[in-house]
Amino acid sequence: MKEAQRWLDAFAAALSLRELAAIPKLFHEECYWRDLVAFTWNLRTCEGPVEIQAMLAATLGVAEPAKFQLRNAVSLDGVIEAWFTFETAVGRGIGHLRLKNRRAWTLLTTLQELKGFEEKSGRTRESGWEAFASPAAEPYVAIVGGGQCGIALAARLKRLGVPAVVLEKNARAGDSWRKRYASLVLHDPVWYDHLPYLPFPEHWPVFSPKDRMGDWLEMYARVMQLDYRGSTECKSARYDEAAESWEIAVEREGQPQTLRAKHLVLATGMSGFPNMPALAGAETFGGRLVHSSAHDGGEGWRGRHCVIVGANNSAHDIAADLVAHGAAAVTMIQRSPTVVVKSEALMELAWGKLYSEAAVERGITTAIADLTVAATPFRLLPQFQRPIYQEILKRDAAFYQDLAKTGFRFDMGEDGSGIHSIYLRRGGGYYIDTGASQMVIDGRIKLRSSAAVKGLGNRSILLEDRTEIPADLVVCATGYGSMNQWAAKLISPEVADKVGKCWGLGSATRYDPSPWVGELRNMWKPTHQPGLWFHGGNLMQARHYSLYLALQLKARYESLPTPVYFIDPVHHLQ
Amino acid sequence: MKEAQRWLDAFAAALSLRELAAIPKLFHEECYWRDLVAFTWNLRTCEGPVEIQAMLAATLGVAEPAKFQLRNAVSLDGVIEAWFTFETAVGRGIGHLRLKNRRAWTLLTTLQELKGFEEKSGRTRESGWEAFASPAAEPYVAIVGGGQCGIALAARLKRLGVPAVVLEKNARAGDSWRKRYASLVLHDPVWYDHLPYLPFPEHWPVFSPKDRMGDWLEMYARVMQLDYRGSTECKSARYDEAAESWEIAVEREGQPQTLRAKHLVLATGMSGFPNMPALAGAETFGGRLVHSSAHDGGEGWRGRHCVIVGANNSAHDIAADLVAHGAAAVTMIQRSPTVVVKSEALMELAWGKLYSEAAVERGITTAIADLTVAATPFRLLPQFQRPIYQEILKRDAAFYQDLAKTGFRFDMGEDGSGIHSIYLRRGGGYYIDTGASQMVIDGRIKLRSSAAVKGLGNRSILLEDRTEIPADLVVCATGYGSMNQWAAKLISPEVADKVGKCWGLGSATRYDPSPWVGELRNMWKPTHQPGLWFHGGNLMQARHYSLYLALQLKARYESLPTPVYFIDPVHHLQ
Repeated sequence: MKEAQRWLDAFAAALSLRELAAIPKLFHEECYWRDLVAFTWNLRTCEGPVEIQAMLAATLGVAEPAKFQLRNAVSLDGVIEAWFTFETAVGRGIGHLRLKNRRAWTLLTTLQELKGFEEKSGRTRESGWEAFASPAAEPYVAIVGGGQCGIALAARLKRLGVPAVVLEKNARAGDSWRKRYASLVLHDPVWYDHLPYLPFPEHWPVFSPKDRMGDWLEMYARVMQLDYRGSTECKSARYDEAAESWEIAVEREGQPQTLRAKHLVLATGMSGFPNMPALAGAETFGGRLVHSSAHDGGEGWRGRHCVIVGANNSAHDIAADLVAHGAAAVTMIQRSPTVVVKSEALMELAWGKLYSEAAVERGITTAIADLTVAATPFRLLPQFQRPIYQEILKRDAAFYQDLAKTGFRFDMGEDGSGIHSIYLRRGGGYYIDTGASQMVIDGRIKLRSSAAVKGLGNRSILLEDRTEIPADLVVCATGYGSMNQWAAKLISPEVADKVGKCWGLGSATRYDPSPWVGELRNMWKPTHQPGLWFHGGNLMQARHYSLYLALQLKARYESLPTPVYFIDPVHHLQ
Repeated sequence: MKEAQRWLDAFAAALSLRELAAIPKLFHEECYWRDLVAFTWNLRTCEGPVEIQAMLAATLGVAEPAKFQLRNAVSLDGVIEAWFTFETAVGRGIGHLRLKNRRAWTLLTTLQELKGFEEKSGRTRESGWEAFASPAAEPYVAIVGGGQCGIALAARLKRLGVPAVVLEKNARAGDSWRKRYASLVLHDPVWYDHLPYLPFPEHWPVFSPKDRMGDWLEMYARVMQLDYRGSTECKSARYDEAAESWEIAVEREGQPQTLRAKHLVLATGMSGFPNMPALAGAETFGGRLVHSSAHDGGEGWRGRHCVIVGANNSAHDIAADLVAHGAAAVTMIQRSPTVVVKSEALMELAWGKLYSEAAVERGITTAIADLTVAATPFRLLPQFQRPIYQEILKRDAAFYQDLAKTGFRFDMGEDGSGIHSIYLRRGGGYYIDTGASQMVIDGRIKLRSSAAVKGLGNRSILLEDRTEIPADLVVCATGYGSMNQWAAKLISPEVADKVGKCWGLGSATRYDPSPWVGELRNMWKPTHQPGLWFHGGNLMQARHYSLYLALQLKARYESLPTPVYFIDPVHHLQ
């Protein structure tokens, strides 16, 4: 505690005096400062003292950080981990520090609320009679896509008093879940999945079935009083440079409408469009050929031959469901290695510490858990994660042996850092095993690994090795593109080009080429297109990052100064 | 702590040895034991050692109470108040004790759960994959009425695995709130209003506007996965003595259907039918004449003359709303005295200790608050409440002086015990002031007090004193009948007669004639009609008493022995 206090005092003094020369004394040569909106009005990780000094030189004048207060500190294996609070000129924040030998190894600073614009809650809640006040003005923010991300952001904006509208092409909130295959159940546990403000009740199942998730989202949008417009498809959006606002063309229940908003948030799913491989013979194929996103479920395929192209989460879920529905044969065609981890192992060894009933009992609130995750800079994530997956390989050694015997190709990612890493790098490439792997082992799901698809016959799929597999159904569980495909479609190819690829860290692994950027590209932060934002990801990200995006929008709505430090150079996937 | 421990040990020993002779030594001559389902399979307050001995003689053999454990005890003004837990042969309970001079003054015993049938929650929650299990069987319980009471009970039964169906004549859950007058806002604060399992979020307004309440109920029914059937009106129900079950005729979306259930719960609102006074000249009245339950709101009455008959909550709300909408004149006709208390005074002096943000911060959970309320036997309630209302009269003396000057007749109830008392006695007779009293004082709401209505003119209302008041609109805010009117309508006049009046304590005050029964008549407990139950009241009652009703039904569903101790003699209001 004392050591952390000493460091924080010295750090606060250096910032207050703008004494940047003190930084190399306060930080190790290998060090990371991750800032979420508090200093940089950006999501930005600075690596090394030089980057930190440059960031501070640019931001201290406006940020005016002060009132650093140590909240607690624990020492573990020579590293002191500490939480602290602080203020800036306009807001209040929470920070996290890792100290080794009296110098900082990692630092996190996050903006949590804006002074004078605190959310009303508890003792400051409204009386209820305000219900009869005047209705909301024109939207300041238009959110395209009303899944968990659009909803979580709209809820935060509502609480912050920023007029926002959610445009959703489906009729009802939750339909994007309801319309997926019948057996879909979340693979992330409930403790990871809470939305802001209204947590799931204590009896909510560990893994939400998709229809329950759909219902939850629908009721959430209602009770949070969102301006949620179903059956409203965004057709195009044009940035009016002169007015500095968007002109958005929508089709609402079949009728064209135009609306204006200062900011446009694409919350269309963290993926872009379905990746549908061009298969020779598709036009003459006599069976059904669909992308996994359009597959309804196993019902109706009893006694039929089914083939799944792909071997990640959806592929496994869909295959298991087809087996359960009595398909004559279900074959999975694996093209590249998959990270496979049993759900229980993941719960126990990866989630358990932060997102579990045990964590709740230890006082780890969702907010603490989220900030703890945020406190690991992405550069360090692999080395933090690798031991977990080593442990998992040991724990489930017999399972992995059995799986290896089938020829199924699996690993723990190119660098052994597992699911969390690969998710951030490419948004997929893994299977959280809830039973389908055992079906592969048992032969109930047939496997063709290291296989390449050559094309389709009339009622079959043809592989490069000249085998032919009977197929009444071919499901391509072949993933999705990048979110900026949506920008290309809705705005223009030029704007999509200007903005560049979304998601990915630049880790120089498969589908995530360098250069390294240290944060997810374009997500939840300013882009090269004024007024355009991207919001996507799983429920945890929908919850946590919606805070920082909402605060950025609120600050602009209130005309606070929001000088953005550093926008990454544009990057395109070749 | 020691003294409470000593008493509890002696009490436990006496029960264990069935030594009823010890009771007069353990209890004062003036003493109360309130049991909620734990010993009596009933809601029953025994008064005095003799009644307690009789109850124990009848129940100990089956109840087998044991494992009494003191949880905490505090001493205040010579009274020790203690919480304890205990078990019976089939369940676990929580109890509360007031000890004066080493002997018990009041005792509360409540059943909280049945052994082997604990609700799954937290660590025992379901995984989520059970979603694909077989659908629910025939309903065991049919609940008529899908307002807060029907919904809260159905939620508890769902969690307990008792198949139940809710029959609601409106299309959607929450419609019974939505359809009321536009300005309706709950007069009870949010801390009092939580439903089981899923509390309102921390930003929920103190007083819920009726449409938000409607939306909350609708989403609650959905996410709690209730079998909630909207547009389904119960037309009649017949008890099949041979089959020991109900045959229920419903009209679902216009189509007649029959369903069977072992138990029938009338949750049709704590009141019966609207009390509509027979007014001479009603058939030739040229304006609009409605009961308050059918009044839409102030819109459309700008510049018109409006008269409200009645001077309780709805009368005030409706009058204030008409004033706000620019009615030419709004006149309230007061026929008898009203208990008037300012909302802030009630919050501060009556609710504050148990249901407020301050209480939450002190660790008073909703469950603790509810059990604390339950720990006051109804006989003692007036003497516990009177000082609060004395204090309120002092606090708001200027207000009451101003109100008195208008001629408005108010008191704190016949015995000065205020709102909680009068609500339990007659379900109405009060106004929780949220601003309309000031309108009476200012003359914006005109008042005719001590007035009796003679009849209606063509466009006027005539009073017995021969005054005539112009009236385009007459709203009769004249209250409701007893719930057993519903039994008469839906089942038969014979069954309604057999069951008798619902609600009221027998306090020998207006609308609540003796004999004293010590619990609300027929509410949440066995009636003289096998398989017939009544459930009604405000949100606190919907929440708290649904637990005891659900446990009674669950025990029967699981064929546990549930010998009912004492059913009150039938009582009819003359």
